[in-house]
Amino acid sequence: MIAFTPTPLLDALLDLTLAEDIGTGDVTSALLIPAEADAAFALRAREPLVVCGAPVVDRLFWRFGPGAPSVDWHVAEGARVEPGDTIGVMRGNQRSLLVLERPALNFLQRLSGIATLTRRYVEAVEGTGARVVDTRKTLPGWRVVDKYAVRVGGGTNHRAALDGGILIKDNHLQAAGGVEAAVRRARAEGPHSLRVEVEVEDLPGLRAAVEAGADVILLDNFSPKQVQAAVQLAKGRALLEASGGITLETIRHFAEAGVELIAVGALTHSARAVDIGADVLAG
Amino acid sequence: MIAFTPTPLLDALLDLTLAEDIGTGDVTSALLIPAEADAAFALRAREPLVVCGAPVVDRLFWRFGPGAPSVDWHVAEGARVEPGDTIGVMRGNQRSLLVLERPALNFLQRLSGIATLTRRYVEAVEGTGARVVDTRKTLPGWRVVDKYAVRVGGGTNHRAALDGGILIKDNHLQAAGGVEAAVRRARAEGPHSLRVEVEVEDLPGLRAAVEAGADVILLDNFSPKQVQAAVQLAKGRALLEASGGITLETIRHFAEAGVELIAVGALTHSARAVDIGADVLAG
Amino acid sequence: MIAFTPTPLLDALLDLTLAEDIGTGDVTSALLIPAEADAAFALRAREPLVVCGAPVVDRLFWRFGPGAPSVDWHVAEGARVEPGDTIGVMRGNQRSLLVLERPALNFLQRLSGIATLTRRYVEAVEGTGARVVDTRKTLPGWRVVDKYAVRVGGGTNHRAALDGGILIKDNHLQAAGGVEAAVRRARAEGPHSLRVEVEVEDLPGLRAAVEAGADVILLDNFSPKQVQAAVQLAKGRALLEASGGITLETIRHFAEAGVELIAVGALTHSARAVDIGADVLAG
Amino acid sequence: MIAFTPTPLLDALLDLTLAEDIGTGDVTSALLIPAEADAAFALRAREPLVVCGAPVVDRLFWRFGPGAPSVDWHVAEGARVEPGDTIGVMRGNQRSLLVLERPALNFLQRLSGIATLTRRYVEAVEGTGARVVDTRKTLPGWRVVDKYAVRVGGGTNHRAALDGGILIKDNHLQAAGGVEAAVRRARAEGPHSLRVEVEVEDLPGLRAAVEAGADVILLDNFSPKQVQAAVQLAKGRALLEASGGITLETIRHFAEAGVELIAVGALTHSARAVDIGADVLAG
Amino acid sequence: MIAFTPTPLLDALLDLTLAEDIGTGDVTSALLIPAEADAAFALRAREPLVVCGAPVVDRLFWRFGPGAPSVDWHVAEGARVEPGDTIGVMRGNQRSLLVLERPALNFLQRLSGIATLTRRYVEAVEGTGARVVDTRKTLPGWRVVDKYAVRVGGGTNHRAALDGGILIKDNHLQAAGGVEAAVRRARAEGPHSLRVEVEVEDLPGLRAAVEAGADVILLDNFSPKQVQAAVQLAKGRALLEASGGITLETIRHFAEAGVELIAVGALTHSARAVDIGADVLAG
Amino acid sequence: MIAFTPTPLLDALLDLTLAEDIGTGDVTSALLIPAEADAAFALRAREPLVVCGAPVVDRLFWRFGPGAPSVDWHVAEGARVEPGDTIGVMRGNQRSLLVLERPALNFLQRLSGIATLTRRYVEAVEGTGARVVDTRKTLPGWRVVDKYAVRVGGGTNHRAALDGGILIKDNHLQAAGGVEAAVRRARAEGPHSLRVEVEVEDLPGLRAAVEAGADVILLDNFSPKQVQAAVQLAKGRALLEASGGITLETIRHFAEAGVELIAVGALTHSARAVDIGADVLAG
Repeated sequence: MIAFTPTPLLDALLDLTLAEDIGTGDVTSALLIPAEADAAFALRAREPLVVCGAPVVDRLFWRFGPGAPSVDWHVAEGARVEPGDTIGVMRGNQRSLLVLERPALNFLQRLSGIATLTRRYVEAVEGTGARVVDTRKTLPGWRVVDKYAVRVGGGTNHRAALDGGILIKDNHLQAAGGVEAAVRRARAEGPHSLRVEVEVEDLPGLRAAVEAGADVILLDNFSPKQVQAAVQLAKGRALLEASGGITLETIRHFAEAGVELIAVGALTHSARAVDIGADVLAG
Repeated sequence: MIAFTPTPLLDALLDLTLAEDIGTGDVTSALLIPAEADAAFALRAREPLVVCGAPVVDRLFWRFGPGAPSVDWHVAEGARVEPGDTIGVMRGNQRSLLVLERPALNFLQRLSGIATLTRRYVEAVEGTGARVVDTRKTLPGWRVVDKYAVRVGGGTNHRAALDGGILIKDNHLQAAGGVEAAVRRARAEGPHSLRVEVEVEDLPGLRAAVEAGADVILLDNFSPKQVQAAVQLAKGRALLEASGGITLETIRHFAEAGVELIAVGALTHSARAVDIGADVLAG
Repeated sequence: MIAFTPTPLLDALLDLTLAEDIGTGDVTSALLIPAEADAAFALRAREPLVVCGAPVVDRLFWRFGPGAPSVDWHVAEGARVEPGDTIGVMRGNQRSLLVLERPALNFLQRLSGIATLTRRYVEAVEGTGARVVDTRKTLPGWRVVDKYAVRVGGGTNHRAALDGGILIKDNHLQAAGGVEAAVRRARAEGPHSLRVEVEVEDLPGLRAAVEAGADVILLDNFSPKQVQAAVQLAKGRALLEASGGITLETIRHFAEAGVELIAVGALTHSARAVDIGADVLAG
Repeated sequence: MIAFTPTPLLDALLDLTLAEDIGTGDVTSALLIPAEADAAFALRAREPLVVCGAPVVDRLFWRFGPGAPSVDWHVAEGARVEPGDTIGVMRGNQRSLLVLERPALNFLQRLSGIATLTRRYVEAVEGTGARVVDTRKTLPGWRVVDKYAVRVGGGTNHRAALDGGILIKDNHLQAAGGVEAAVRRARAEGPHSLRVEVEVEDLPGLRAAVEAGADVILLDNFSPKQVQAAVQLAKGRALLEASGGITLETIRHFAEAGVELIAVGALTHSARAVDIGADVLAG
Repeated sequence: MIAFTPTPLLDALLDLTLAEDIGTGDVTSALLIPAEADAAFALRAREPLVVCGAPVVDRLFWRFGPGAPSVDWHVAEGARVEPGDTIGVMRGNQRSLLVLERPALNFLQRLSGIATLTRRYVEAVEGTGARVVDTRKTLPGWRVVDKYAVRVGGGTNHRAALDGGILIKDNHLQAAGGVEAAVRRARAEGPHSLRVEVEVEDLPGLRAAVEAGADVILLDNFSPKQVQAAVQLAKGRALLEASGGITLETIRHFAEAGVELIAVGALTHSARAVDIGADVLAG
Repeated sequence: MIAFTPTPLLDALLDLTLAEDIGTGDVTSALLIPAEADAAFALRAREPLVVCGAPVVDRLFWRFGPGAPSVDWHVAEGARVEPGDTIGVMRGNQRSLLVLERPALNFLQRLSGIATLTRRYVEAVEGTGARVVDTRKTLPGWRVVDKYAVRVGGGTNHRAALDGGILIKDNHLQAAGGVEAAVRRARAEGPHSLRVEVEVEDLPGLRAAVEAGADVILLDNFSPKQVQAAVQLAKGRALLEASGGITLETIRHFAEAGVELIAVGALTHSARAVDIGADVLAG
C-alpha cells in the first residue's frame, strides 16, 4: 500500500480547513438537528475514478476531536471504482457529519482527481518503461497530499521540497559560469543524498550536461523527435526527463522516444475534482 | 476595487506554503547563486486571463520576512490580459526570488484561473440580471482566497462558512418535521442577520417553501424549463437560486428562465490553473 | 440542546490557556503531591446561576492530553442551579486536577456569567415576542464561546464575524451616497445568504431605510417612545432592532414598544463571572 | 512607565482576535467603502477611567500587516481621563479601520476596566502601606495582558503561572503531612527564586505556618479583626496576605488591620469593560 | 516521581520535531517496508547513564496520532542504568517506528545526558548540603524539558522564565542607583511570590546586598576561598549562590565553603548526548 | 556566503524561544530599568571559535516585533575569531536587550559550537578529498539551523529529512528480500532526484551493494583498514561513506583510507556550546 505518513504540516492544513468552514458553528444544523441524532452517509462515486484520500479524511475526523464520526472504507486506496460504487460509509453524530461531509468530499474529490488523472497518464505510457513524475506545481499548502495522490495514481515524485533535489536551471548555469562548473560544484558541495539534475534546452546543452556528469537531465520543451535524438546522444550516461506541455495525447510519443522520466505539471496544477457524492443511508 | 482583507487564517496558509516548499533551504541556489545577487522576473500571461492574486502574493512575500523581494504590479487586480502581457515584475535578492517564484506562480495561476472561469460564467449571463454564485466546494485551506477570486471574476459569494447563512436541506427538513416548521424555527431562533434558504427538489417542494416564508429557495437539479415554472410559481416572493450541474453551455438557459442566482460549484472545485510564466529580465 | 461545535480557533484559545498558566509546570504540586495520587473535586454553584461551559471544559481536558482528568456533569448545560448545587465532579490524577481546576473554573464562571445575565434579559422580555441579541462586543479570542453562552442563556446571535451579516452604518452611508444607493448595492452585490441591515438614528432615517428596502433596521439610541413610533412607521416592512444603552431595567419598555430584536452589548462585554467553587471530595 | 513585553503568546491571542472577527472579510465595507479611502477615528473616554492597552492595540495593528492603520496616543498609559477626553486617534485606510476599530475597543475597554478598578482598590488603601495583588482568576488567554493592566492600575502581581510561585494549599498540606513538612520540603527542593507561601484558615494554622518558616502566609477568609490578630501573632516573621471576598467597601478595614498584601480576584474576573467610543473625525 | 506537566509549548516543540524530520514522508520505508508490518525495538543504554525523557517520548508518540507505536518502559525515570540495560521497548507499526525511532532517541539522549551530568554534579557535593541549580542557558525551545531533566538528575531549578524570579544584575543596579534602592523597589513593587536575588562581584558588594536585605545573593566568579569569606560575612542573613565557571573538578570546594546553591550553566548548555541505541527485536 | 533561508519552521522555534523565556515579562527590568533607556552590548568571543548564527539572531529580533534592538555584525558568518574579538554589537532599548541577550547568546553559542567543531573535523581531513557530513542526530526542533551550522563549519549535509534521501538499512533489506531487490525497487519507484544509499556491515555486504547498483554505500562501523579494503573493492562504482564512532582523533585514518564521505553524528549531537559573552558598552 502506498505509504502515507501524517505530519504536523498536514495537521495545520486540516485545522485550517475546519476553522474556515466551521466559523462559530453550523447554524442550520444547530437550529434543526437534534443534538443526539446519528446518521450515516455513503460516499459514492459518480464517475469512474481512482480512490484517493482515505487516510487524509480519517485524520481530518481525528482532528475534529473526541466523539467525531468515523469512516468505514469499502474499497482500498488506489482502487478504481465505477459510478455508483460505495467508497465508504461515514457514521456518527448527525450534526458532526453535516459539518464534516463537505470538507471530506473536498479532499476526496481533489485527491481522487489527481490519482485518476495520474493513472491515465501512467496507463498511456504502459509498457514503455517510462515513469510519470510530478512537479512543484502543487497547490500551496497541499504539497504532502498532492504528491501522495500522484503516488496513489501510479506516478512517482520529483523532489518534495527545495532541499530534496538539486535542479540546475538557466539562472544557476549563468551564475555558476556554465554547466561544467555548476555540476562540479554541486557534486563537490551538495548533499550526497541528492542526484544532480540539469535542465537543458537543446542538444548542445544536453551534450554539455552529459559531459559535465549530470545524473539526470531535464529536456525542456523537446519534441518527441528531439527526445529521441537526446536518448541516442546520452547513451544511458544520464537519466533523461522530458518536460514541458506534455499532454495525455502526446505523452506516449515521448515515452516511445525512450526517455525514462516524463514530468507532467498538470497532474497537480490542473487536476479536475472528480465527482463523489454523499448519500444519506436510511436510519 | 474588490476588497481583500488579510486574516491570520490566510497567514497560516502562506506559512504552510513556505514551510512545505523551502524545507531546510534551496540547495541548488545555495550552491550556485551568489548571496548578494539581485534579479528581476517578469510575470507574464501565456494565455488570455483575468488577473487575480496580487494581494496574496504581496502578503506571501511579507511573510517571508525582512529583505524579501517585492512585486511591482503592472495591471490592476481583475484586469483581463492577453498572452505576453506583463502582469508584474518581481525584483530582489536572486536566491529569495528563486524560492518565491514557484509559490507565487502557484497562487496566481489558481486564483487567476478561478477569476477567469468566473468571468466567463458571468459573461454568459450578461444582460439577464442573474448572478453567478459560488459554493462551499472550495479547496480546503483556501476558502478566503477562493471566494475572493470569485468576486474578482465578477461572481458573488454564497455563505463564507457554516455560520454565514442558513441553508436548510433534506436532512434538516426531515429532522425538523417539514419545511413549515423548519423555516419557522430558523426565523424565530436563527441569527437575524441571515436569510433563510431552503433547498427543494421539485415544484411542490418549492410551493411549500414559498408558503413557509423562505427568503431564498435553492432549486436543486431543476431543468431550465422547471426553473421557468418555478419563477412563475414564486412570483417574486422568494429569491430563487438554481444549482446542480450547470455548465458554461447551459447557464444562459437558466438565466433566461428568470432565476436570480445560479450556483456553480465548478468555479472553485474545477478551475484550471491558467498559464503564467516568470521570465528573467536582463540584469 | 444548544449546539456547540468545536473549532481549531477554540483549540487555539484552550492551548493558550494551558500554556500561560502551566509555564514549565506546577512547582507546588510537583514538590508536595505524589505522582500517582487521585482526587475528585465537586464543582458547586455558590450563587444562583445558569450553567454554561461544560463542552468547553471537556475539550480543555482533552487538549491536556492522554491521562487527563474528566468531568461527570450532574446538570444539563443551560440548567438553572441554586447555591450549593453540584454542577459536576472532576476526577483524576490529583496533580493534573490542581493544574486544570483554575482554568476550568475561569471558563465556567465567565460563560455561566454570560448565560445567567442573558437569561435575565430574556426573562425580562418574556411574553413580548422580542428577542435578545448579542453584539461584536465579545472578548477578543472568545467570540465562539461568548456567543455560545448567549445562546445557552436564551439569547440569539447577531453576525458571528464581519462576513456573517451586512450592517450598514454611518460611514458606509456617507461613502455610498445615501441609504437608497447603499441598500441597492448591498442587495445586488452582497452575499444573498445575508440580510441587509441599516443603522439609523432617527425616524427620517428609518423611513428612508424602509423605503430603500432594508431587511433589518437598527434603531440606534431610540427611546422606547421613539421605538414605538418606529414600529408604527415600519409596519412590518422591516425587522426592527433596538440598540444602545439598554439595561435590565429598561429592556421591557423597548420590548413592549413592539420591536422584534433588542441588542445588548452588556451580555458579553460586561458579564460578571459568577461564583462557582471546586470542593475536594473525600477520598 | 509600566513595562509591557510582547510575547508570542500575546501574538497568538491577537491573531485569534483577528481571525474570529474578520472571517473571510468585512462584507459591508467591501461593498460600500472605496478601497483607497482614508479615515480617522478619535478614541474618546465616555466615563472617567484609567487608560490601559495602548501597546496591545499597537501590536494588534502590527499583526494586521503592512499598510495597517496606526494610533497616535494622546495620553500616557495609566493616565486618568475624563468623559470626552481623547485617548488617541487612529488613522489610516478606512476599510482597515472599520475592521480594527471594534477589536481595538474591546481590548482597550477591558484593560482600561481592569486598570480603573485596580486604581480604585489601590486608592482605597492609600497611606496604609498595603498592596493590592491579583490572582490566577484572569481570563483564559489573557493572563499576560490582564496582569499588565493590574500593574498599570497600580496593583502588583501574584505569581504569573504555576511555576512562578510556591503556594501551598489544603490539598498540599494534607498530602505532605502537615505544614512543617510541606514548608521544609518546598524550601529544600523548590526553586530558590520563589518564596514559600502557605494558605491558612485560622490562627492556629497561621501559628503553625509561621513556625514552619513560611515566607508568606495567605489568610483565607479572615475578617479584618482576625487579620489584626494575625498581624500581632506573626510579628513580621512572615508577609501576610488577606484573601477572600474582599470588596471596595471592605478593603480599607483589611489594610488598616496591618496586612501587607490584599488579594482581589475581582480585579480581573469581574472587571467591567469601561466605555470608550470611536468617533469619526471629519476628513 | 519528578513531576512532568505537558504544556502546549512542549507540543509545539514536538510538532516541530515531527515536521522537520518527516517532510513529506519516509521515502525509504515507503518503498521497502510493507504497510502492515509490525516491529519492536529495544532502547538500550550503551554507556552508564541516568534515564530521562520517557514522558516526552510518550507525548511525542501521542502527537504522531492514532495508531502510533507505544513504549513499554522497563526502568523508572531517573534510574541509573548500565551499558546493555534495556530502558524500554517500542512496539508498533514498523514504518511508524522507523520514523519515530530517531527523534525519540534524540530526545532521550540529550535529556538523559543532562540528567546524567546533573547527577554527577549532585554526587560531587553529596553530604555538604549544597544544591546544584541550573540557569537560563537552556537550549532555545527546550526550556521546559531541559529544566525537567535537571530535576530528574537531582538538581533544582532556578527561575523558569524572566517572570519567575527577580535577579538584579549590574545593569539594574546602575539604572536603579545602587543596591539599596534596587532591593527596596523590588521588594515594594515586585511580585511577592518571588525572592529578590542580587548578583555581586566582590565582598563589599556582598556586604551592601546583605544590608539592603536581598533574599539571595549570587556570588559571581568568587573563588572557593572568597565564597568562604562570603559565608562568614552573610551569617545566614541571605541565601548564597555561587556561579561562574564551576566544574565537576571544582564544585566540591565551593560546596565545602558553605554556600547553599551552586549554579552550573554547563548542566544544560554543554551536556553531551549520552549513547542509547535502538536494537531490533526478533519478530 | 553559506545560504540561510528562513522558513516558518524556524519562526516556530524562535517564537517558542521567546515565549518560554519571556513568560509574562522580565520582572526585574520592569522594576528597575527606565522604559526609554537604550544600551549596547558587545558580543565577544571568550575562546577561539567559528562564528555562526547571525541570520538566526537577526530573525529572532525581527520576531520580537517593531522597535526591537538590532545587531551590527563585525565579522562574517563562518569567520574564525579569537578570545576578545567582537563578533557584533547589539543596540537598542535596554529592557528589550536584557530580554533578548540570553536567547541570542544561546543560539550563537550552540551554532558557533557546531560550526567550530565541524571546522576541526574538516581541517583534520584537509587535503585528503574526504568530506565531513552530518546525520539526523540533530537537536529536535533545530534541524534547519543545526544543518546550517554544519555547512558554515565547512561540512556538508546528509539528507535534510526522511524525504530527502533514500537510505536503505537492515530493516529495509530484510523486508525487501535482500539488497538486489531493495535497490532495484528504490531505483524504479523512488524519486529520481534522490541517490540510493545502502548501509552495509561488512565487505560481502559491500560487494552485494555495489553489484546491486547502489549510488552510495554507508560503511557502518568499518575500521580504517576495512575502509581501505572497501575502497579497493568498490573501485569508484559507488560513493563510500564511513560512519560509526569516528572521532577527531581517528577521522584522518578514515580519510586517508580513501573514503569520500565521513559521517560524524557528534557534529550536532555532542557539540559543546562555545563561550561568547555580552559586555555592556559604556553609554
